[in-house]
Amino acid sequence: MLDLGEIREKIDGIDKQLVSLFEERMALCHSVAEYKISTGKKVLDTERENAKLAAITKMVQNPENVHAINDLFSQIMANSRKMQYRLLEENGQTLREPYEAVNEVDKTNCKVVYQGVPGAYSYIAMKRYFGENVENFHVPTWRDAMEAVKMGKADYAVLPIENSTAGIVAGVYDLLQEYNNYIIAETYIKVEHALLGLPGTDLDKVTTVYSHPQGLMQCEGFLEQHKDWNQISQANTAQSAQKVLLEKNPSHVAIASEEAAQVYGLEVLKHKINDLDNNTTRFVIVTNTRKFVKNAKKMSIVFETANEAGTLYNLLSHIIYNGLNMNKIESRPIEGREWEFRFFVDFEGNIDDPRVINALRGIEEESKKIKLLGNY
Amino acid sequence: MLDLGEIREKIDGIDKQLVSLFEERMALCHSVAEYKISTGKKVLDTERENAKLAAITKMVQNPENVHAINDLFSQIMANSRKMQYRLLEENGQTLREPYEAVNEVDKTNCKVVYQGVPGAYSYIAMKRYFGENVENFHVPTWRDAMEAVKMGKADYAVLPIENSTAGIVAGVYDLLQEYNNYIIAETYIKVEHALLGLPGTDLDKVTTVYSHPQGLMQCEGFLEQHKDWNQISQANTAQSAQKVLLEKNPSHVAIASEEAAQVYGLEVLKHKINDLDNNTTRFVIVTNTRKFVKNAKKMSIVFETANEAGTLYNLLSHIIYNGLNMNKIESRPIEGREWEFRFFVDFEGNIDDPRVINALRGIEEESKKIKLLGNY
Repeated sequence: MLDLGEIREKIDGIDKQLVSLFEERMALCHSVAEYKISTGKKVLDTERENAKLAAITKMVQNPENVHAINDLFSQIMANSRKMQYRLLEENGQTLREPYEAVNEVDKTNCKVVYQGVPGAYSYIAMKRYFGENVENFHVPTWRDAMEAVKMGKADYAVLPIENSTAGIVAGVYDLLQEYNNYIIAETYIKVEHALLGLPGTDLDKVTTVYSHPQGLMQCEGFLEQHKDWNQISQANTAQSAQKVLLEKNPSHVAIASEEAAQVYGLEVLKHKINDLDNNTTRFVIVTNTRKFVKNAKKMSIVFETANEAGTLYNLLSHIIYNGLNMNKIESRPIEGREWEFRFFVDFEGNIDDPRVINALRGIEEESKKIKLLGNY
Repeated sequence: MLDLGEIREKIDGIDKQLVSLFEERMALCHSVAEYKISTGKKVLDTERENAKLAAITKMVQNPENVHAINDLFSQIMANSRKMQYRLLEENGQTLREPYEAVNEVDKTNCKVVYQGVPGAYSYIAMKRYFGENVENFHVPTWRDAMEAVKMGKADYAVLPIENSTAGIVAGVYDLLQEYNNYIIAETYIKVEHALLGLPGTDLDKVTTVYSHPQGLMQCEGFLEQHKDWNQISQANTAQSAQKVLLEKNPSHVAIASEEAAQVYGLEVLKHKINDLDNNTTRFVIVTNTRKFVKNAKKMSIVFETANEAGTLYNLLSHIIYNGLNMNKIESRPIEGREWEFRFFVDFEGNIDDPRVINALRGIEEESKKIKLLGNY
């Protein structure tokens, strides 16, 4: 029997031959690609690939190797396709839709829409991103905000997309998929609840606290010390503050943001009463044109695939092959189609980077459907 | 220049040689694996793999091929590792923790805990799964339910994990990761809201409707026809029904499940008033021992990985390589560690299936951390 050193020497010898054969193969594939480019033939030819795999399988001597060798040739062919997509893009045969590159988001001459009421966290995100004096209006639902942007009634919408403790805002993900609006920026807002009341409120005389159910839940620790208070749920935290203002009853208080205190002329009776200190919400800024800032670093896409083993994996391989970092992946069921999923993927990259162009081209060619959600 | 037929003939010839060299290589790797098994050496030897890739890169003639050839050998080595994991498992060198196989969940002699109050959707899921007469109690939070199961105060907990329109219940995902409780079953409940009131309520005299904010939102279409009603939010839908009962005011109604009407002795004034017809919530049944039913078909796992390009992709490859279908993937940030993620993956399979055993072994060896959440 050979010892480990001898075995490894033999493996090294084989690898040398594998490299040289593979290079020969790549050169031949290059010629096939040129032929396909000149004749406009589609890169992915599933029939031929399946025939190839069947022929390969017949050549295998040891049945235990069939799986690994099929895997190997699937990858060789996938790599060859990726090379062809790159050649197509380099030859100007692109599937890319045009977009407008801007130096930065124009925060001064614009009108912004958000969902909710003044003092809500979307309102805070808007003010934080666009500045105190931005022209704005609010609507009752996220869909209304998307619609306002689509119809040009607003230049931008500010929408919550993800919370560090509650997870993704699925409704907003679905709207991004449905509308042809694009993410042009994102901003993070720390969720910090305060106890608000009418100026001069005496904490010992409080009987009732208003907030959104989530606000009440997030301040459980604080409320434990005031078990005698009635906890009344409201549609949102900012509305709770408004209610305290309108009722003019100094025994009623609200749990909401400090900004809500400013908006409704209430006093902050206690700062930061939420249990956890690391509760952050991420908001996206969307607009109705394909317009991205030049130094944008994050790509958001959504694609659809059937539930066959490997399909998602194969699609992600375009991102990996091009050396791009994936930040996030979410699956959402497609309405009315059982076991079919839509995948939302964020990865690092700029829309003009050749690696991004090649990755998008590959996914476009090999998925059921792909949509660019934004570059920011 | 060669024509397409001639090129393909040449490629076929190369592939024949590739297959035979690859088989030779696999046989040698088999010997390495046997050596590793007998000496207890770890399968993944990152240092040696990196040295190998560096040596290979030096051999490449055409720089354009470096990327593809690195990819190829990464996969060859990954496949060789997968073969070694299989051999280790077949030789009884398993990392698997034992579990108890049961024929079915014993629904009669058990005590069940759920979060919420009678009439809530978790309560409905419990009754639907365990039967009307199951011994049960309820707690205020999901954590309390997990804790009750952990301490043996309840045999099972019923927890919502995903809603078809609202997405995953992130808090429950995080608790599954935190606690050593296991999913033993799942059940789907259609969310159907009804309008409930005191027996004999006259719809024309209604002034106020109670519900959870989400309940009010989901019945927007219906409520449009009753714009004069005050919409008052409550902590949950079942509590709204309870409130109507306690207030004994026939001008007050609630939006909740029909089961809540039964529980609180209210009348169903209108069936199915929700806007969408396809709103379903998936619930999981968890217990505190590694106990799974014999014909279980779905595996749920969670694993951690650093955000290096390809890591998630490499870990998923263990599932794909073993021919298993992935149903779902969710990423959640890991508290306090920026850019590091935890991935929750569901795939089809039984814990005793060799394909599942080999996939889990591979992920266990190559991820930072893996945890089995259940097989059901």
